[in-house]
Amino acid sequence: MQPKSFFRTECPAARALETVGEWWSILILRDAFQGMSRFDEFQQSLGIAPNILSRRLAHLTEAGMFVRHRYSARPPRYEYLLTPKGRDFFPVLVALFAWGNKHLAPNGESIVLANRKDVRPLEPVMVDAADMHLITSANAVLVPGPRASREMRKRLASLKAMNPDISTLGS
Amino acid sequence: MQPKSFFRTECPAARALETVGEWWSILILRDAFQGMSRFDEFQQSLGIAPNILSRRLAHLTEAGMFVRHRYSARPPRYEYLLTPKGRDFFPVLVALFAWGNKHLAPNGESIVLANRKDVRPLEPVMVDAADMHLITSANAVLVPGPRASREMRKRLASLKAMNPDISTLGS
Repeated sequence: MQPKSFFRTECPAARALETVGEWWSILILRDAFQGMSRFDEFQQSLGIAPNILSRRLAHLTEAGMFVRHRYSARPPRYEYLLTPKGRDFFPVLVALFAWGNKHLAPNGESIVLANRKDVRPLEPVMVDAADMHLITSANAVLVPGPRASREMRKRLASLKAMNPDISTLGS
Repeated sequence: MQPKSFFRTECPAARALETVGEWWSILILRDAFQGMSRFDEFQQSLGIAPNILSRRLAHLTEAGMFVRHRYSARPPRYEYLLTPKGRDFFPVLVALFAWGNKHLAPNGESIVLANRKDVRPLEPVMVDAADMHLITSANAVLVPGPRASREMRKRLASLKAMNPDISTLGS
């Protein structure tokens, strides 16, 4: 039915989206990074229906981004704490945040991401850890990894053909 | 009905998500960064229903991330080209990609992001442009911007109260 769907499951960006699940999940993660952990806190922040919030929290827990921790025995109450896998999602939120502030706040910013120590505004940029050079769509390219399927290799080869800039790369 | 929804519209990350629209849009942008521009190319890549693809392309065009360009007069045919606003979305995709490869490819990677010149794999990290230091959830904080509403200031103040690490910050 969807002959090319392999790229949806093999592409790590697509898999990341499928793992996180949907917009609500990203906003829940955002709130968790701001220190929220309890059902009521998320609900109050997001104005989300309880059944949807339950489902998203359960999904993020199953996906290994939260651990559920009981903080009260009677009545039983749980909080949701970010795991290392969940914490690693932070750059996605920072990237969304920076893009939103740059392009969707024409009259000035409502919230600013700042350095915690001196409250100096941060300007987030994506660089390569090896040489600290900016990563841009002009200087980056996708190449097959060790587990690339045959379809993936074909696809990446056809992309090279489509984009003459990268036609000199070996595969 | 949703008393706290101001934070959904005032938060730049939430607005970014609302602007982009949904998962499909992010995958369309991903393909555009790989050089695709035509309806058929997107459709073949994504295995997406034509009516959904049309709607997403129209949405991304209205949102100013694509410009529609007629490349054939008879029959009329259009391609979708990334604008600067669309190009600026690249770090979001790189962040999703890096997270997916780190956490969702336990048996090895299918695709690797590499330097275009020497095909060396890249390790994307988010840093502050001013000093090239890593931006993490531990060293970053949200503060009110010049256009913060009163609710936003209250919310950010209550977050400080919740998170003792940042309780010494002025507001």
